Amino acid sequence: MLRSVSGSNSSRGIAAVVGVGPRLGSAVARKFASEGYTVAILSRDLEKLSQLAEEIAKEAKAQVFALRVDCADARSVREAFEGVLSLGPVEVLVYNAGEPPADDGDGDAIAPPRPNPFLAISPDSFHRSLAVSAAGAFYCAQQVIPGMVERGRGTVIFTGSSASVTGFAGYSDLSCGKFALRGLSQSLAKEFQPAGVHIAHMIIDGAIGEPRSSARGRCGGGEADPDAVAQSYWHVHAQDKSAWTHEMDIRSPSSTMY
Amino acid sequence: MLRSVSGSNSSRGIAAVVGVGPRLGSAVARKFASEGYTVAILSRDLEKLSQLAEEIAKEAKAQVFALRVDCADARSVREAFEGVLSLGPVEVLVYNAGEPPADDGDGDAIAPPRPNPFLAISPDSFHRSLAVSAAGAFYCAQQVIPGMVERGRGTVIFTGSSASVTGFAGYSDLSCGKFALRGLSQSLAKEFQPAGVHIAHMIIDGAIGEPRSSARGRCGGGEADPDAVAQSYWHVHAQDKSAWTHEMDIRSPSSTMY
Amino acid sequence: MLRSVSGSNSSRGIAAVVGVGPRLGSAVARKFASEGYTVAILSRDLEKLSQLAEEIAKEAKAQVFALRVDCADARSVREAFEGVLSLGPVEVLVYNAGEPPADDGDGDAIAPPRPNPFLAISPDSFHRSLAVSAAGAFYCAQQVIPGMVERGRGTVIFTGSSASVTGFAGYSDLSCGKFALRGLSQSLAKEFQPAGVHIAHMIIDGAIGEPRSSARGRCGGGEADPDAVAQSYWHVHAQDKSAWTHEMDIRSPSSTMY
Amino acid sequence: MLRSVSGSNSSRGIAAVVGVGPRLGSAVARKFASEGYTVAILSRDLEKLSQLAEEIAKEAKAQVFALRVDCADARSVREAFEGVLSLGPVEVLVYNAGEPPADDGDGDAIAPPRPNPFLAISPDSFHRSLAVSAAGAFYCAQQVIPGMVERGRGTVIFTGSSASVTGFAGYSDLSCGKFALRGLSQSLAKEFQPAGVHIAHMIIDGAIGEPRSSARGRCGGGEADPDAVAQSYWHVHAQDKSAWTHEMDIRSPSSTMY
Repeated sequence: MLRSVSGSNSSRGIAAVVGVGPRLGSAVARKFASEGYTVAILSRDLEKLSQLAEEIAKEAKAQVFALRVDCADARSVREAFEGVLSLGPVEVLVYNAGEPPADDGDGDAIAPPRPNPFLAISPDSFHRSLAVSAAGAFYCAQQVIPGMVERGRGTVIFTGSSASVTGFAGYSDLSCGKFALRGLSQSLAKEFQPAGVHIAHMIIDGAIGEPRSSARGRCGGGEADPDAVAQSYWHVHAQDKSAWTHEMDIRSPSSTMY
Repeated sequence: MLRSVSGSNSSRGIAAVVGVGPRLGSAVARKFASEGYTVAILSRDLEKLSQLAEEIAKEAKAQVFALRVDCADARSVREAFEGVLSLGPVEVLVYNAGEPPADDGDGDAIAPPRPNPFLAISPDSFHRSLAVSAAGAFYCAQQVIPGMVERGRGTVIFTGSSASVTGFAGYSDLSCGKFALRGLSQSLAKEFQPAGVHIAHMIIDGAIGEPRSSARGRCGGGEADPDAVAQSYWHVHAQDKSAWTHEMDIRSPSSTMY
Repeated sequence: MLRSVSGSNSSRGIAAVVGVGPRLGSAVARKFASEGYTVAILSRDLEKLSQLAEEIAKEAKAQVFALRVDCADARSVREAFEGVLSLGPVEVLVYNAGEPPADDGDGDAIAPPRPNPFLAISPDSFHRSLAVSAAGAFYCAQQVIPGMVERGRGTVIFTGSSASVTGFAGYSDLSCGKFALRGLSQSLAKEFQPAGVHIAHMIIDGAIGEPRSSARGRCGGGEADPDAVAQSYWHVHAQDKSAWTHEMDIRSPSSTMY
Repeated sequence: MLRSVSGSNSSRGIAAVVGVGPRLGSAVARKFASEGYTVAILSRDLEKLSQLAEEIAKEAKAQVFALRVDCADARSVREAFEGVLSLGPVEVLVYNAGEPPADDGDGDAIAPPRPNPFLAISPDSFHRSLAVSAAGAFYCAQQVIPGMVERGRGTVIFTGSSASVTGFAGYSDLSCGKFALRGLSQSLAKEFQPAGVHIAHMIIDGAIGEPRSSARGRCGGGEADPDAVAQSYWHVHAQDKSAWTHEMDIRSPSSTMY
């Protein structure tokens, strides 16, 4: 576990963001950090991750911890969350992992991945895709929900996509995983909202670009600004308990409008 | 048109809220008023409406106009919006009308209406229900979208319910109208989002109570606080154009969780 | 009421098909006629309708009655069904009406209608579209369901389209009506399936052509054979009560695959 | 591979039914056998399976082959389908596997399984559930689709449930797997229907009983007759190519009517 500190020690609790690359995951982490949460960011590539942790800590003047996790591996998830839970009570879990395009190892859902013809997908690759999209969410949720139930509060947000609600030719592996994640999310909402745990599912429809605020910052005509998307994640977390959202879509200008 | 003023004259434009009773409609009006909009509230009962306008103007220190409208009647909608549009450019339309329970003439969706056995619904009553739920939304949208397209911005929010996404025994008239409204909303999103007009559909699942903040204020265990719901309406309006929500649900503790 | 007879008198009861042009409506009527039902076909143009009745009666060696109805008008529906019900118990109602493309006055859903820009739709035209798509279904169902409940059996099939499940730019009036019909259908299923009445909703996705069997018969690459579609209507009606279908899609090769 | 023969040798090709217990799987196998297909039935328990094969062969006067498969295991699927494909071209694949209730090892979806509280599900058990519900379908489809594409025809039917379209408290593992299967099914439909392969998804809502026709035969008030359900599987397979169904529900009297 690597720690990047910049700022005060008082914290509103831990926000764990799983599947963090330079776009959506980072923006969500930055938003929760800037709202006073101690943030734990998790993905497979610890090197990139710790760089991001440092940047976020500096920008948001917050504590940010970087932890390696392989979401496809239940044991790796358990070990990573031992680390996360040692930081304090996890108030928020954002599950944002999805197998990234081959040339982009950051575990962050950036752009629609390239199509995989069904007949060319190996069982191993299918299995891994399903594990990262859905099983990892299951494992991570099992780590944090017991504490949330005990405290009678907490938020779990799952990141879906247009492939969560409709199939696409050439995306059978992605749709399998994303549909599964949505089924998980609906079941958990019904099981745990009575216990005070807010479960939400965000449907990101279209590509996410670089943050407008960043140095490289340019959000092409077709891409969502990740900081804008993160505002909706924050909104969902901040909602009053009497009026919770379970599912909302977020459409970039390049949205499929499924 | 009745006007209640309390506060400054500078305005961010007009927010028109159609179907305003003491709960959701009022809360949405109050929220937009407090954010600097001049608010026009519309429903059938001008007397109750002008009382509400006065209250909201006082609380939010804003200009609030009350206009009578019968949403089932295209001509009445056109005339009412002549009044609304004379106030300035309509930046936001919230369509919140739904035929209220018989004992509650305020045109605001408060609580699940009582069931109507299908065979007992008269053609006239069915027709009126469909007109208020869906045709009125169509008429109102036609009044404000041309200006929004011209300015390349604007927000239209339609209020749906669990009856928008699934049928219920004893609610055939309600489901007809609410499904229709959702179809309208999806079509308008695809037709006008490219022109810069944000079209959104909120699915209110469960009953809405009195605002917690009000004198009578008590939100029973099962009811949503209308001010909390209004926060999500505001959030949708305030979203960055690169990351718009088209549909979100809002679940009160008594949600059916359809 | 016009009657075309060709064949025996023994009948399994009445099948009423509302919204009958040369394609889907005719094919459904032909199928039920050939299975031993006395068929009543209804649409606005009695001249075309009686020609069709004659053709169907001859082909299927059955009794076929033609009755004029304007589905948008509750009184017209009531009067037409007085005629239908005088023929015997209505065992099947197929509601197939939809406002046809302007150049095709037969009341049968043939091809995707041309787009109507939202801002160009007059209130009257919108109102009529909604009335034909949804209110007419409501009125017709009210005429036949009481008898079905009394006998503890009967089938009501509503014809939807891809516009029943998703909005399309330029089809706001169609989607409004078709969504409404689906809401009606789901509500009626929940209200009346316990009473033994089978309510089903067919989602026709794509265009329907001429029957392959007909003289003009050619089903282009992209069009469904209406006789093939009618087989699925028949299948739904013939299902065992313990295993009823409420909704199925039927996709022509030109399907949008929504 | 065990073979039970009773009747003629001429066959319309192979129908492979995966996940066969005494109810739905058997009924589907029986139906396709009686329509002239050589049937291969597959599940984990070869002993029970070969008994069923014998019964079905006798009843339907057909060739029925029993093959052991563990759907969770890609290699086991590949080996089993080497056997299946050696019998001839697979015209139909019905994927019906779902992890059965603990006391019922037959791999056939019979009754709603008992709830599993989310926090009590072990990673291994979750993984297995997802593998049987979704990955097995993926593996099996990969075995038969290449031949179907080559011949330009074939049918693949996946068996879903109400847990395919909505989450339920206590069924997070089931919903994960069943949602995934539906995503797979929609993707494959879009990818392979243009190539002439019919992909369909059946939503079985409610419990399936013993066949009415059987010795033990009694379909309680709440259960679907599996032979009736199998009629709809057959109907889907028999549909004309211009009018294919991708998804239909089948509701037993105990349906949740989701």
